[in-house]
Amino acid sequence: MNEDVEQVRKSIRMGEWSKPTTGLASGYTQANLVILPKKYAFDFLLFCVRNPKSCPLLEVTDAGSPTPSKIAAGADLRTDVPKYRIYQNGKMVKEETDISSYWRDDFVSFLIGCSFTFEKALQDNGIPLRYIEEERNVSMYRTNIPCESSGIFNGPMVVSMRPMKPAEAIRAVQITSRFPSVHGAPVHIGDPDAIGITDLGKPDYGDAVTIHEGEVPVFWACGVTPQAVVMDSKPDIVITHAPGHMLITDMTEEEQAVL
Amino acid sequence: MNEDVEQVRKSIRMGEWSKPTTGLASGYTQANLVILPKKYAFDFLLFCVRNPKSCPLLEVTDAGSPTPSKIAAGADLRTDVPKYRIYQNGKMVKEETDISSYWRDDFVSFLIGCSFTFEKALQDNGIPLRYIEEERNVSMYRTNIPCESSGIFNGPMVVSMRPMKPAEAIRAVQITSRFPSVHGAPVHIGDPDAIGITDLGKPDYGDAVTIHEGEVPVFWACGVTPQAVVMDSKPDIVITHAPGHMLITDMTEEEQAVL
Repeated sequence: MNEDVEQVRKSIRMGEWSKPTTGLASGYTQANLVILPKKYAFDFLLFCVRNPKSCPLLEVTDAGSPTPSKIAAGADLRTDVPKYRIYQNGKMVKEETDISSYWRDDFVSFLIGCSFTFEKALQDNGIPLRYIEEERNVSMYRTNIPCESSGIFNGPMVVSMRPMKPAEAIRAVQITSRFPSVHGAPVHIGDPDAIGITDLGKPDYGDAVTIHEGEVPVFWACGVTPQAVVMDSKPDIVITHAPGHMLITDMTEEEQAVL
Repeated sequence: MNEDVEQVRKSIRMGEWSKPTTGLASGYTQANLVILPKKYAFDFLLFCVRNPKSCPLLEVTDAGSPTPSKIAAGADLRTDVPKYRIYQNGKMVKEETDISSYWRDDFVSFLIGCSFTFEKALQDNGIPLRYIEEERNVSMYRTNIPCESSGIFNGPMVVSMRPMKPAEAIRAVQITSRFPSVHGAPVHIGDPDAIGITDLGKPDYGDAVTIHEGEVPVFWACGVTPQAVVMDSKPDIVITHAPGHMLITDMTEEEQAVL
Protein backbone atom coordinates (compact mmCIF):
# COMPACT_ATOMS: atom_id res chain seq x y z
CA MET A 1 0.00 0.00 0.00
CA ASN A 2 1.14 3.54 -0.69
CA GLU A 3 2.61 5.29 2.39
CA ASP A 4 0.46 8.39 1.93
CA VAL A 5 -2.72 6.32 1.77
CA GLU A 6 -1.70 4.32 4.85
CA GLN A 7 -0.88 7.50 6.80
CA VAL A 8 -4.13 9.28 5.87
CA ARG A 9 -6.30 6.25 6.52
CA LYS A 10 -4.66 5.73 9.93
CA SER A 11 -5.26 9.30 11.02
CA ILE A 12 -8.91 9.03 9.89
CA ARG A 13 -9.28 5.76 11.81
CA MET A 14 -7.77 7.31 14.96
CA GLY A 15 -10.30 10.15 14.74
CA GLU A 16 -7.55 12.70 14.07
CA TRP A 17 -8.99 13.67 10.69
CA SER A 18 -12.76 14.26 10.39
CA LYS A 19 -12.74 16.89 7.64
CA PRO A 20 -13.36 16.52 3.86
CA THR A 21 -10.82 14.40 1.96
CA THR A 22 -10.31 16.73 -1.01
CA GLY A 23 -6.62 16.81 -1.90
CA LEU A 24 -5.65 14.00 0.52
CA ALA A 25 -3.46 11.14 -0.79
CA SER A 26 -3.23 12.84 -4.18
CA GLY A 27 -3.38 10.45 -7.14
CA TYR A 28 -5.53 7.88 -5.31
CA THR A 29 -9.14 7.11 -6.12
CA GLN A 30 -11.74 8.17 -3.54
CA ALA A 31 -15.14 6.51 -3.22
CA ASN A 32 -18.72 7.33 -2.21
CA LEU A 33 -20.23 4.92 0.33
CA VAL A 34 -23.80 3.61 0.71
CA ILE A 35 -24.51 0.93 3.35
CA LEU A 36 -27.89 -0.83 3.32
CA PRO A 37 -29.41 -3.95 4.94
CA LYS A 38 -29.32 -7.03 2.70
CA LYS A 39 -33.09 -6.95 2.16
CA TYR A 40 -32.63 -3.79 0.02
CA ALA A 41 -29.36 -4.89 -1.60
CA PHE A 42 -30.67 -6.59 -4.75
CA ASP A 43 -32.89 -3.66 -5.70
CA PHE A 44 -30.14 -1.12 -4.98
CA LEU A 45 -27.50 -3.16 -6.83
CA LEU A 46 -29.81 -3.38 -9.82
CA PHE A 47 -30.47 0.37 -9.55
CA CYS A 48 -26.73 0.98 -9.80
CA VAL A 49 -26.37 -1.45 -12.74
CA ARG A 50 -29.25 0.27 -14.55
CA ASN A 51 -27.78 3.75 -13.96
CA PRO A 52 -24.04 3.32 -14.53
CA LYS A 53 -23.41 6.99 -15.35
CA SER A 54 -24.53 8.22 -11.93
CA CYS A 55 -23.84 5.04 -9.89
CA PRO A 56 -20.61 3.47 -11.23
CA LEU A 57 -19.81 0.58 -8.88
CA LEU A 58 -16.19 0.24 -7.77
CA GLU A 59 -16.98 -2.59 -5.33
CA VAL A 60 -19.84 -4.24 -3.44
CA THR A 61 -18.96 -6.13 -0.24
CA ASP A 62 -20.42 -9.41 0.95
CA ALA A 63 -23.13 -8.99 3.61
CA GLY A 64 -21.55 -8.29 6.99
CA SER A 65 -18.05 -7.67 5.63
CA PRO A 66 -16.59 -4.24 6.47
CA THR A 67 -13.60 -4.88 4.15
CA PRO A 68 -13.55 -3.59 0.56
CA SER A 69 -10.97 -6.23 -0.40
CA LYS A 70 -10.68 -5.26 -4.05
CA ILE A 71 -10.16 -1.51 -3.83
CA ALA A 72 -8.86 -1.02 -0.25
CA ALA A 73 -7.91 -4.37 1.32
CA GLY A 74 -6.48 -2.79 4.47
CA ALA A 75 -9.46 -0.53 5.13
CA ASP A 76 -12.33 -0.92 7.59
CA LEU A 77 -15.58 0.63 6.38
CA ARG A 78 -16.73 1.16 9.99
CA THR A 79 -13.92 3.55 10.89
CA ASP A 80 -12.01 4.69 7.79
CA VAL A 81 -14.39 7.35 6.48
CA PRO A 82 -13.90 10.70 8.26
CA LYS A 83 -17.60 11.36 8.73
CA TYR A 84 -20.72 9.22 8.27
CA ARG A 85 -24.41 10.05 8.12
CA ILE A 86 -27.04 7.76 9.63
CA TYR A 87 -30.47 7.92 7.99
CA GLN A 88 -33.64 6.33 9.38
CA ASN A 89 -36.76 6.22 7.18
CA GLY A 90 -35.20 8.84 4.87
CA LYS A 91 -34.30 11.32 7.64
CA MET A 92 -30.75 12.05 8.78
CA VAL A 93 -30.67 11.30 12.51
CA LYS A 94 -26.97 11.58 13.31
CA GLU A 95 -23.44 12.23 12.03
CA GLU A 96 -20.70 9.94 13.37
CA THR A 97 -16.94 9.48 12.86
CA ASP A 98 -17.16 5.75 13.73
CA ILE A 99 -20.09 3.44 12.98
CA SER A 100 -18.82 0.30 14.75
CA SER A 101 -21.73 0.41 17.22
CA TYR A 102 -24.25 0.52 14.32
CA TRP A 103 -22.70 -2.36 12.37
CA ARG A 104 -24.90 -5.34 11.48
CA ASP A 105 -24.23 -8.72 9.91
CA ASP A 106 -26.73 -7.99 7.13
CA PHE A 107 -25.13 -4.72 6.00
CA VAL A 108 -24.02 -4.62 2.34
CA SER A 109 -21.66 -1.78 1.40
CA PHE A 110 -21.62 -0.12 -2.01
CA LEU A 111 -18.49 1.80 -3.05
CA ILE A 112 -19.33 4.18 -5.89
CA GLY A 113 -16.92 6.12 -8.09
CA CYS A 114 -16.19 9.77 -7.29
CA SER A 115 -15.48 12.52 -9.81
CA PHE A 116 -12.36 13.66 -7.89
CA THR A 117 -10.61 11.19 -10.18
CA PHE A 118 -11.27 12.89 -13.48
CA GLU A 119 -10.90 16.35 -11.96
CA LYS A 120 -7.20 15.75 -11.55
CA ALA A 121 -7.04 14.59 -15.18
CA LEU A 122 -8.90 17.76 -16.23
CA GLN A 123 -6.45 19.94 -14.28
CA ASP A 124 -3.48 18.05 -15.74
CA ASN A 125 -4.85 19.10 -19.13
CA GLY A 126 -5.01 22.76 -18.14
CA ILE A 127 -8.80 22.89 -17.76
CA PRO A 128 -9.58 25.25 -14.86
CA LEU A 129 -12.02 24.13 -12.16
CA ARG A 130 -13.92 27.23 -11.11
CA TYR A 131 -15.09 25.90 -7.74
CA ILE A 132 -11.50 25.19 -6.71
CA GLU A 133 -10.38 28.62 -7.93
CA GLU A 134 -13.20 30.23 -5.93
CA GLU A 135 -12.73 27.91 -2.93
CA ARG A 136 -16.30 26.66 -2.98
CA ASN A 137 -18.01 23.28 -3.29
CA VAL A 138 -18.89 22.10 -6.82
CA SER A 139 -22.40 23.13 -8.07
CA MET A 140 -24.89 20.24 -8.18
CA TYR A 141 -28.45 20.22 -9.53
CA ARG A 142 -31.45 17.88 -9.66
CA THR A 143 -32.43 17.39 -13.31
CA ASN A 144 -35.52 16.15 -15.13
CA ILE A 145 -33.53 13.16 -16.45
CA PRO A 146 -35.22 10.15 -14.86
CA CYS A 147 -33.07 7.33 -13.52
CA GLU A 148 -34.19 3.84 -14.46
CA SER A 149 -36.00 2.56 -11.39
CA SER A 150 -35.43 -0.70 -9.51
CA GLY A 151 -37.81 -1.83 -6.78
CA ILE A 152 -38.29 1.06 -4.31
CA PHE A 153 -35.36 3.01 -5.79
CA ASN A 154 -36.48 5.75 -8.15
CA GLY A 155 -35.69 9.41 -8.82
CA PRO A 156 -34.01 11.98 -11.07
CA MET A 157 -30.33 12.18 -11.97
CA VAL A 158 -28.29 14.72 -10.02
CA VAL A 159 -25.53 16.39 -12.05
CA SER A 160 -22.42 18.37 -11.22
CA MET A 161 -21.62 21.38 -13.39
CA ARG A 162 -18.29 22.86 -14.46
CA PRO A 163 -18.19 25.98 -16.68
CA MET A 164 -15.50 26.11 -19.38
CA LYS A 165 -14.75 27.35 -22.90
CA PRO A 166 -16.15 25.28 -25.81
CA ALA A 167 -12.68 24.02 -26.82
CA GLU A 168 -12.09 22.93 -23.22
CA ALA A 169 -15.47 21.18 -23.20
CA ILE A 170 -14.42 19.14 -26.23
CA ARG A 171 -11.16 18.16 -24.54
CA ALA A 172 -13.08 17.40 -21.33
CA VAL A 173 -15.29 14.93 -23.22
CA GLN A 174 -12.17 13.13 -24.46
CA ILE A 175 -10.52 13.08 -21.04
CA THR A 176 -13.52 11.97 -18.99
CA SER A 177 -14.54 9.27 -21.51
CA ARG A 178 -11.44 7.40 -20.31
CA PHE A 179 -12.96 7.12 -16.81
CA PRO A 180 -16.40 5.43 -17.01
CA SER A 181 -16.00 4.07 -13.46
CA VAL A 182 -16.00 7.62 -12.05
CA HIS A 183 -18.97 8.98 -14.08
CA GLY A 184 -17.29 9.09 -17.50
CA ALA A 185 -18.26 11.53 -20.27
CA PRO A 186 -20.65 14.44 -19.62
CA VAL A 187 -24.42 13.88 -19.95
CA HIS A 188 -25.15 17.40 -21.25
CA ILE A 189 -23.44 20.55 -22.57
CA GLY A 190 -25.07 23.99 -22.74
CA ASP A 191 -28.72 24.98 -22.15
CA PRO A 192 -29.58 24.12 -18.52
CA ASP A 193 -33.34 24.33 -19.24
CA ALA A 194 -33.07 21.33 -21.56
CA ILE A 195 -32.41 19.09 -18.55
CA GLY A 196 -34.80 20.85 -16.17
CA ILE A 197 -32.41 23.28 -14.46
CA THR A 198 -34.07 26.71 -14.21
CA ASP A 199 -31.38 28.74 -12.46
CA LEU A 200 -27.66 27.89 -12.50
CA GLY A 201 -27.21 30.45 -9.71
CA LYS A 202 -29.24 28.28 -7.33
CA PRO A 203 -27.73 24.80 -7.15
CA ASP A 204 -29.64 22.12 -5.19
CA TYR A 205 -26.39 20.96 -3.57
CA GLY A 206 -22.99 22.67 -3.20
CA ASP A 207 -22.32 26.29 -4.16
CA ALA A 208 -22.91 28.53 -7.18
CA VAL A 209 -19.79 29.51 -9.14
CA THR A 210 -19.03 32.31 -11.62
CA ILE A 211 -19.63 31.56 -15.32
CA HIS A 212 -17.52 33.85 -17.49
CA GLU A 213 -18.51 35.35 -20.86
CA GLY A 214 -18.00 32.74 -23.61
CA GLU A 215 -18.13 29.75 -21.28
CA VAL A 216 -20.65 26.91 -21.47
CA PRO A 217 -21.87 24.81 -18.54
CA VAL A 218 -20.83 21.17 -18.83
CA PHE A 219 -22.85 18.62 -16.82
CA TRP A 220 -21.72 15.24 -15.47
CA ALA A 221 -23.80 12.56 -13.73
CA CYS A 222 -23.04 12.93 -10.03
CA GLY A 223 -22.46 10.54 -7.14
CA VAL A 224 -25.06 12.44 -5.12
CA THR A 225 -27.71 10.71 -7.29
CA PRO A 226 -27.71 7.39 -5.39
CA GLN A 227 -27.79 9.18 -2.03
CA ALA A 228 -30.70 11.40 -3.13
CA VAL A 229 -32.57 8.38 -4.51
CA VAL A 230 -31.91 6.31 -1.38
CA MET A 231 -33.17 9.16 0.82
CA ASP A 232 -36.33 9.59 -1.30
CA SER A 233 -37.14 5.88 -1.05
CA LYS A 234 -36.92 5.88 2.79
CA PRO A 235 -35.43 2.49 3.75
CA ASP A 236 -35.55 1.97 7.54
CA ILE A 237 -31.78 2.41 7.86
CA VAL A 238 -29.03 3.64 5.53
CA ILE A 239 -25.53 4.80 6.36
CA THR A 240 -23.53 6.95 3.92
CA HIS A 241 -20.38 9.03 4.04
CA ALA A 242 -20.98 12.74 4.73
CA PRO A 243 -20.61 14.73 1.47
CA GLY A 244 -16.94 15.32 0.67
CA HIS A 245 -15.79 12.88 3.39
CA MET A 246 -14.84 9.97 1.15
CA LEU A 247 -13.16 6.59 1.51
CA ILE A 248 -9.59 6.73 0.22
CA THR A 249 -8.80 3.56 -1.75
CA ASP A 250 -5.59 1.75 -2.71
CA MET A 251 -6.28 2.24 -6.41
CA THR A 252 -4.53 4.98 -8.30
CA GLU A 253 -6.67 7.30 -10.35
CA GLU A 254 -4.91 6.12 -13.51
CA GLU A 255 -6.00 2.52 -12.78
CA GLN A 256 -9.60 3.67 -13.32
CA ALA A 257 -8.89 4.64 -16.94
CA VAL A 258 -10.16 2.23 -19.63
CA LEU A 259 -7.72 3.66 -22.19
CA MET B 1 -37.30 -0.66 -34.77
CA ASN B 2 -35.13 -1.68 -37.69
CA GLU B 3 -36.99 -3.70 -40.35
CA ASP B 4 -34.35 -6.43 -40.45
CA VAL B 5 -34.46 -6.90 -36.69
CA GLU B 6 -38.27 -7.02 -36.72
CA GLN B 7 -38.29 -9.56 -39.55
CA VAL B 8 -35.69 -11.84 -37.94
CA ARG B 9 -37.26 -11.68 -34.52
CA LYS B 10 -40.68 -12.49 -35.96
CA SER B 11 -39.42 -15.56 -37.80
CA ILE B 12 -37.67 -16.74 -34.62
CA ARG B 13 -40.87 -16.20 -32.63
CA MET B 14 -42.93 -18.13 -35.19
CA GLY B 15 -40.50 -21.04 -34.88
CA GLU B 16 -39.34 -20.63 -38.49
CA TRP B 17 -35.72 -19.97 -37.46
CA SER B 18 -34.14 -22.21 -34.80
CA LYS B 19 -30.52 -22.08 -36.02
CA PRO B 20 -27.58 -19.96 -34.77
CA THR B 21 -27.92 -16.22 -35.22
CA THR B 22 -24.44 -15.49 -36.59
CA GLY B 23 -24.74 -12.97 -39.42
CA LEU B 24 -28.45 -12.26 -38.83
CA ALA B 25 -29.59 -8.59 -38.65
CA SER B 26 -26.05 -7.43 -39.37
CA GLY B 27 -24.98 -4.37 -37.37
CA TYR B 28 -27.25 -5.15 -34.42
CA THR B 29 -26.03 -6.21 -30.99
CA GLN B 30 -26.76 -9.80 -29.96
CA ALA B 31 -26.99 -10.92 -26.34
CA ASN B 32 -26.34 -13.96 -24.15
CA LEU B 33 -29.25 -14.93 -21.88
CA VAL B 34 -29.28 -16.37 -18.34
CA ILE B 35 -32.65 -16.78 -16.56
CA LEU B 36 -32.65 -17.60 -12.83
CA PRO B 37 -35.21 -17.60 -10.00
CA LYS B 38 -35.17 -14.42 -7.90
CA LYS B 39 -33.64 -16.24 -4.90
CA TYR B 40 -30.36 -16.53 -6.86
CA ALA B 41 -30.60 -13.12 -8.53
CA PHE B 42 -28.69 -10.99 -6.02
CA ASP B 43 -25.72 -13.33 -5.91
CA PHE B 44 -25.64 -13.73 -9.69
CA LEU B 45 -26.04 -9.98 -10.29
CA LEU B 46 -23.17 -9.32 -7.90
CA PHE B 47 -21.13 -12.03 -9.67
CA CYS B 48 -21.63 -10.17 -12.96
CA VAL B 49 -20.76 -6.80 -11.36
CA ARG B 50 -17.59 -8.29 -9.87
CA ASN B 51 -16.55 -9.87 -13.19
CA PRO B 52 -17.36 -7.22 -15.79
CA LYS B 53 -14.86 -8.51 -18.39
CA SER B 54 -16.59 -11.90 -18.73
CA CYS B 55 -20.13 -10.87 -17.66
CA PRO B 56 -20.83 -7.39 -19.06
CA LEU B 57 -24.50 -6.67 -18.29
CA LEU B 58 -26.56 -5.15 -21.08
CA GLU B 59 -29.81 -5.40 -19.10
CA VAL B 60 -31.43 -7.14 -16.14
CA THR B 61 -35.24 -7.48 -16.15
CA ASP B 62 -37.57 -7.09 -13.20
CA ALA B 63 -38.68 -10.43 -11.71
CA GLY B 64 -41.39 -11.99 -13.87
CA SER B 65 -40.96 -9.60 -16.79
CA PRO B 66 -40.14 -11.26 -20.14
CA THR B 67 -39.47 -7.86 -21.75
CA PRO B 68 -35.95 -6.44 -22.06
CA SER B 69 -37.37 -2.91 -22.36
CA LYS B 70 -34.03 -1.13 -22.64
CA ILE B 71 -32.28 -3.16 -25.35
CA ALA B 72 -35.19 -4.86 -27.17
CA ALA B 73 -38.53 -3.32 -26.13
CA GLY B 74 -40.55 -5.33 -28.64
CA ALA B 75 -38.99 -8.69 -27.76
CA ASP B 76 -40.37 -11.51 -25.62
CA LEU B 77 -37.67 -13.48 -23.82
CA ARG B 78 -39.90 -16.59 -23.75
CA THR B 79 -40.07 -16.94 -27.54
CA ASP B 80 -37.52 -14.70 -29.27
CA VAL B 81 -34.38 -16.78 -28.81
CA PRO B 82 -34.08 -19.51 -31.49
CA LYS B 83 -33.06 -22.22 -29.03
CA TYR B 84 -33.03 -22.42 -25.22
CA ARG B 85 -31.43 -24.86 -22.81
CA ILE B 86 -33.15 -25.90 -19.58
CA TYR B 87 -30.79 -26.92 -16.74
CA GLN B 88 -31.88 -28.55 -13.49
CA ASN B 89 -29.36 -28.90 -10.67
CA GLY B 90 -26.53 -28.18 -13.12
CA LYS B 91 -27.62 -30.77 -15.72
CA MET B 92 -29.09 -29.93 -19.12
CA VAL B 93 -32.47 -31.68 -19.28
CA LYS B 94 -33.96 -30.25 -22.46
CA GLU B 95 -33.58 -27.93 -25.45
CA GLU B 96 -36.64 -25.87 -26.41
CA THR B 97 -37.54 -23.23 -29.01
CA ASP B 98 -40.20 -21.69 -26.73
CA ILE B 99 -40.08 -21.53 -22.92
CA SER B 100 -43.55 -20.08 -22.29
CA SER B 101 -44.63 -23.21 -20.40
CA TYR B 102 -41.59 -22.95 -18.09
CA TRP B 103 -42.06 -19.27 -17.29
CA ARG B 104 -42.38 -18.23 -13.64
CA ASP B 105 -43.19 -14.94 -11.91
CA ASP B 106 -39.92 -15.10 -9.98
CA PHE B 107 -37.65 -15.44 -13.05
CA VAL B 108 -35.04 -12.69 -13.45
CA SER B 109 -33.39 -12.47 -16.89
CA PHE B 110 -29.79 -11.38 -17.43
CA LEU B 111 -28.78 -10.14 -20.89
CA ILE B 112 -25.01 -10.28 -21.26
CA GLY B 113 -22.88 -8.76 -24.02
CA CYS B 114 -21.68 -10.96 -26.90
CA SER B 115 -18.39 -10.65 -28.74
CA PHE B 116 -20.14 -10.76 -32.15
CA THR B 117 -20.17 -6.99 -31.73
CA PHE B 118 -16.45 -6.37 -31.74
CA GLU B 119 -15.83 -9.08 -34.33
CA LYS B 120 -17.53 -6.94 -36.95
CA ALA B 121 -15.34 -4.01 -35.85
CA LEU B 122 -12.24 -6.25 -36.15
CA GLN B 123 -13.26 -7.33 -39.66
CA ASP B 124 -13.98 -3.72 -40.66
CA ASN B 125 -10.35 -3.04 -39.71
CA GLY B 126 -9.07 -5.84 -41.92
CA ILE B 127 -8.24 -8.24 -39.07
CA PRO B 128 -8.98 -11.78 -40.30
CA LEU B 129 -11.07 -14.09 -38.11
CA ARG B 130 -9.65 -17.58 -38.61
CA TYR B 131 -12.71 -19.46 -37.38
CA ILE B 132 -14.91 -17.70 -39.91
CA GLU B 133 -12.36 -18.33 -42.69
CA GLU B 134 -12.28 -22.02 -41.70
CA GLU B 135 -16.05 -22.22 -41.13
CA ARG B 136 -15.71 -23.42 -37.55
CA ASN B 137 -16.86 -22.22 -34.14
CA VAL B 138 -14.49 -19.90 -32.24
CA SER B 139 -11.97 -21.67 -29.91
CA MET B 140 -12.80 -21.31 -26.20
CA TYR B 141 -10.76 -22.45 -23.19
CA ARG B 142 -11.13 -22.67 -19.42
CA THR B 143 -8.25 -20.72 -17.82
CA ASN B 144 -6.64 -20.62 -14.38
CA ILE B 145 -7.80 -17.00 -13.97
CA PRO B 146 -10.25 -17.12 -11.06
CA CYS B 147 -13.45 -15.11 -11.25
CA GLU B 148 -14.32 -13.16 -8.13
CA SER B 149 -16.95 -15.25 -6.37
CA SER B 150 -20.38 -14.16 -5.14
CA GLY B 151 -22.49 -16.45 -2.98
CA ILE B 152 -22.71 -19.88 -4.69
CA PHE B 153 -21.28 -18.52 -7.96
CA ASN B 154 -17.61 -19.29 -8.38
CA GLY B 155 -15.28 -20.58 -11.10
CA PRO B 156 -12.57 -19.81 -13.65
CA MET B 157 -12.77 -17.37 -16.54
CA VAL B 158 -13.45 -18.87 -19.96
CA VAL B 159 -11.70 -17.11 -22.84
CA SER B 160 -12.12 -17.03 -26.60
CA MET B 161 -8.95 -17.05 -28.72
CA ARG B 162 -8.22 -15.43 -32.06
CA PRO B 163 -4.80 -15.85 -33.70
CA MET B 164 -3.33 -12.83 -35.49
CA LYS B 165 -0.07 -11.02 -36.32
CA PRO B 166 1.44 -8.85 -33.57
CA ALA B 167 0.59 -5.60 -35.39
CA GLU B 168 -3.00 -6.81 -35.74
CA ALA B 169 -3.05 -7.67 -32.03
CA ILE B 170 -2.08 -4.09 -31.19
CA ARG B 171 -4.86 -2.74 -33.43
CA ALA B 172 -7.27 -5.29 -31.90
CA VAL B 173 -6.53 -3.93 -28.41
CA GLN B 174 -7.41 -0.43 -29.62
CA ILE B 175 -10.59 -1.54 -31.38
CA THR B 176 -11.98 -3.76 -28.64
CA SER B 177 -11.20 -1.27 -25.85
CA ARG B 178 -14.03 0.82 -27.34
CA PHE B 179 -16.51 -1.95 -26.48
CA PRO B 180 -16.35 -2.74 -22.73
CA SER B 181 -19.99 -3.88 -22.73
CA VAL B 182 -19.16 -6.76 -25.07
CA HIS B 183 -15.99 -7.98 -23.26
CA GLY B 184 -13.70 -5.06 -24.16
CA ALA B 185 -9.91 -5.36 -24.46
CA PRO B 186 -8.15 -8.76 -24.41
CA VAL B 187 -7.18 -10.31 -21.07
CA HIS B 188 -4.00 -11.96 -22.41
CA ILE B 189 -1.69 -12.06 -25.45
CA GLY B 190 0.79 -14.84 -26.22
CA ASP B 191 1.88 -17.79 -24.01
CA PRO B 192 -1.21 -19.95 -23.35
CA ASP B 193 0.51 -21.69 -20.41
CA ALA B 194 0.60 -18.42 -18.50
CA ILE B 195 -3.20 -18.57 -18.10
CA GLY B 196 -3.41 -22.34 -17.61
CA ILE B 197 -4.10 -23.45 -21.19
CA THR B 198 -1.93 -26.50 -21.98
CA ASP B 199 -2.94 -27.25 -25.58
CA LEU B 200 -4.40 -24.68 -27.98
CA GLY B 201 -5.29 -27.60 -30.27
CA LYS B 202 -7.80 -28.88 -27.71
CA PRO B 203 -10.31 -26.15 -26.85
CA ASP B 204 -12.80 -26.82 -24.03
CA TYR B 205 -15.61 -25.32 -26.12
CA GLY B 206 -15.90 -24.68 -29.88
CA ASP B 207 -13.33 -25.82 -32.45
CA ALA B 208 -9.56 -25.63 -32.89
CA VAL B 209 -8.32 -23.30 -35.64
CA THR B 210 -5.03 -23.02 -37.56
CA ILE B 211 -2.38 -20.71 -36.11
CA HIS B 212 0.02 -19.56 -38.83
CA GLU B 213 3.78 -18.94 -38.44
CA GLY B 214 4.36 -15.51 -36.90
CA GLU B 215 0.91 -15.25 -35.34
CA VAL B 216 0.18 -14.86 -31.62
CA PRO B 217 -2.93 -16.09 -29.83
CA VAL B 218 -5.02 -13.22 -28.41
CA PHE B 219 -7.45 -14.06 -25.59
CA TRP B 220 -10.69 -12.30 -24.64
CA ALA B 221 -12.97 -12.92 -21.66
CA CYS B 222 -15.87 -14.95 -23.01
CA GLY B 223 -19.64 -14.97 -22.45
CA VAL B 224 -19.46 -18.72 -21.84
CA THR B 225 -17.98 -17.88 -18.41
CA PRO B 226 -21.31 -17.08 -16.69
CA GLN B 227 -22.94 -20.18 -18.18
CA ALA B 228 -20.07 -22.41 -17.06
CA VAL B 229 -20.12 -20.86 -13.58
CA VAL B 230 -23.90 -21.17 -13.30
CA MET B 231 -23.72 -24.84 -14.33
CA ASP B 232 -20.94 -25.55 -11.80
CA SER B 233 -22.96 -24.01 -8.98
CA LYS B 234 -26.03 -26.17 -9.70
CA PRO B 235 -29.06 -23.96 -8.98
CA ASP B 236 -32.31 -25.99 -9.10
CA ILE B 237 -33.37 -24.36 -12.37
CA VAL B 238 -31.62 -22.16 -14.94
CA ILE B 239 -32.60 -21.39 -18.52
CA THR B 240 -30.05 -20.07 -21.03
CA HIS B 241 -29.86 -19.60 -24.78
CA ALA B 242 -28.22 -22.51 -26.64
CA PRO B 243 -24.66 -21.51 -27.67
CA GLY B 244 -24.73 -19.34 -30.79
CA HIS B 245 -28.52 -18.92 -30.60
CA MET B 246 -28.61 -15.36 -29.27
CA LEU B 247 -31.23 -12.70 -28.60
CA ILE B 248 -31.11 -10.02 -31.31
CA THR B 249 -31.52 -6.58 -29.74
CA ASP B 250 -32.64 -3.19 -31.05
CA MET B 251 -29.25 -1.63 -30.27
CA THR B 252 -26.75 -1.13 -33.03
CA GLU B 253 -23.26 -2.43 -32.45
CA GLU B 254 -21.90 1.11 -32.66
CA GLU B 255 -24.16 2.16 -29.75
CA GLN B 256 -22.11 -0.17 -27.52
CA ALA B 257 -18.92 1.81 -28.15
CA VAL B 258 -17.78 4.12 -25.33
CA LEU B 259 -15.63 6.16 -27.72
